[in-house]
Amino acid sequence: MFELLKTDVSSKARLGRLTTTHGVVDTPVFMSVGTQASVKAIDPRELRDMGANIILGNTYHLNIRPGMEILRAAGGLHAFMNWQGPILTDSGGFQVFSLATIRKIQQHGVEFRSHLDGSLLFLGPKEAMGIQRELGSDIAMVFDDCPPHTSTPRELRAAVERTMRWAGECREQPRAPGQMVFGIVQGGINPELREECARALIQLDFNGYAIGGVSVGEPEPEMMRAVELGEQFLPADKPRYAMGLGTPAQLVELVARGVDMFDCVLPTRVARNGTAFTRKGSISIKGGAYKADFRPIEEGCDCFACQNFTRAYLRHLLNVGEILGLRMLSVHNTRMFIKVMEDVRAAIAGGSFGAFRREFAANYVPTQKVLLARAAVAER
Amino acid sequence: MFELLKTDVSSKARLGRLTTTHGVVDTPVFMSVGTQASVKAIDPRELRDMGANIILGNTYHLNIRPGMEILRAAGGLHAFMNWQGPILTDSGGFQVFSLATIRKIQQHGVEFRSHLDGSLLFLGPKEAMGIQRELGSDIAMVFDDCPPHTSTPRELRAAVERTMRWAGECREQPRAPGQMVFGIVQGGINPELREECARALIQLDFNGYAIGGVSVGEPEPEMMRAVELGEQFLPADKPRYAMGLGTPAQLVELVARGVDMFDCVLPTRVARNGTAFTRKGSISIKGGAYKADFRPIEEGCDCFACQNFTRAYLRHLLNVGEILGLRMLSVHNTRMFIKVMEDVRAAIAGGSFGAFRREFAANYVPTQKVLLARAAVAER
Repeated sequence: MFELLKTDVSSKARLGRLTTTHGVVDTPVFMSVGTQASVKAIDPRELRDMGANIILGNTYHLNIRPGMEILRAAGGLHAFMNWQGPILTDSGGFQVFSLATIRKIQQHGVEFRSHLDGSLLFLGPKEAMGIQRELGSDIAMVFDDCPPHTSTPRELRAAVERTMRWAGECREQPRAPGQMVFGIVQGGINPELREECARALIQLDFNGYAIGGVSVGEPEPEMMRAVELGEQFLPADKPRYAMGLGTPAQLVELVARGVDMFDCVLPTRVARNGTAFTRKGSISIKGGAYKADFRPIEEGCDCFACQNFTRAYLRHLLNVGEILGLRMLSVHNTRMFIKVMEDVRAAIAGGSFGAFRREFAANYVPTQKVLLARAAVAER
Repeated sequence: MFELLKTDVSSKARLGRLTTTHGVVDTPVFMSVGTQASVKAIDPRELRDMGANIILGNTYHLNIRPGMEILRAAGGLHAFMNWQGPILTDSGGFQVFSLATIRKIQQHGVEFRSHLDGSLLFLGPKEAMGIQRELGSDIAMVFDDCPPHTSTPRELRAAVERTMRWAGECREQPRAPGQMVFGIVQGGINPELREECARALIQLDFNGYAIGGVSVGEPEPEMMRAVELGEQFLPADKPRYAMGLGTPAQLVELVARGVDMFDCVLPTRVARNGTAFTRKGSISIKGGAYKADFRPIEEGCDCFACQNFTRAYLRHLLNVGEILGLRMLSVHNTRMFIKVMEDVRAAIAGGSFGAFRREFAANYVPTQKVLLARAAVAER
């Protein structure tokens, strides 16, 4: 199901190919987030046009709305949202972290009080895998306990032990035809815990391995460290997925650390605030500097927004609250992330990833505002 | 510039062709409203795909944001919004009505206190035509005084006299190359005033004539009466435009009364509340009845939304606040209005408009909610 095609000489970067029931995914890959069965503001045709070939759905949110009765009747998530390509579903484990105030961790799972109407919802290994089986995702994630980066050593250990135990239970659950299941390595920045968790999951022989417990409000060096600690134990012949990351510059650095798959809400979330990503960093299109700037968001960009509209026009739309403005920034940002990964793959294939990485880092100036947006968990 | 191709035998319905600088418009036609240089939630490619070939812009709103400095620098409205087809611009006369609380009518125009920042803005015949010249619209509207339907006879007469005087001043203003100018007939449901106003405008020899003072909160019979009163005096060889109207059933009835052109915010405005138009009337897609309804909004509809998504999915999107939901309803509703006009034209051409009109009226059940939405002036 996963072929490792090439490994970079200057780093741990890898070129791979993941074959799913709904199509082939070239890695490294950026996956767009469609939490509630829609990549925010973008339609499936636009996604295909911009080269998106795998998207995410979320077990917790879809189970609440529209609910499994409707998703079953629709014939699964692909049919419901009319997306014919691969789908990876998150298990709800991230909501153990992001919805910490409305959940209680128990022996066999987590009890949530619905963020919507207060009704009770129980998610554990059995429930999360059952929902993902019915959703019919190409890749299901195990149900894990994702602890905050401020956890005490005792809390972190408890989360890792729970994650390992639940992973074993997830492994035993029935799957949809052809469905892959990925394990999730937890352990914060504790080397022993990361190793213990990784080794336990590898014993269970999953189809791929994710590094979780990142994108939970930690500073960037801690995030990089957590990925490095998890990655080193993972088998070369299985895909590795860093969950919930990151900015374009971070993605390139994480590829260099051996990561194959990424997902992040940043492209669409910051678009709704008027922020556009470029190879030089992000810019706030609402700013007065762009009011008579008749260039596209980024010169040379092949996205629909850059092919059709100017910064001045998009600024106007954003400032008067026209939906087309945030739509077009969502399109541009999503295409930008996908194109960076296309360039990454071409560089690895051509043996020039080291030079690409240096040049990318030299051009890209990180914006504090965007790093903070990444830290703000709400949408995933 | 306008060719009258055929007149229906059973009614006053007309088939025509209006040639503008940016393309040919077959009439009767529905024009989508892009008040602030965007048809709400829809991009220009989608508009073209659904057969839109003329859209509206608004003098008052565009003059405030983005402002003429930017629109001039962009090279006019077509270039600014990247719409290569014909554009008709409203003059700001409707805002004399809709922004009545923040404006003062004076001898040579109207002083507005900007709804945005309270700054003063003066619009009169000279200003409104100057702005429309710089916008470079294919059809400019004269600056009129649009009175509410609750006006006293004295107020109505004053508005008509002002409208006639200002029309004369508008007629003298320079135009953009190839720009047409339409007069606007006011007079409420007073036969003498409608006649007097129509005759005065015809003396000025405009390129077309609009019936104004409708879609200002009046009941439907009064609206129909106002159009009939205005239409009877208009020359056959010029296009007639009923401003701000209406529901699909009303459009068909207005075509039967000799109207060639329409604009209305209904398709996109009610879409944002989850209302979809069908040949049987409008339906609220958010309703529980559609939660597991896997049919398209309307069977047989060729719009992108109906070709790709089910009622159940759109209902879910609308209920969770996903932008794709209101986008797709905006697309469907806009295509529905355009398709009704395509069918109207085919029926007139084929000599079957009488039957079409009867069948349309028999199928279409008007919804009170939608009629009220039409009456609520906010967006145009």
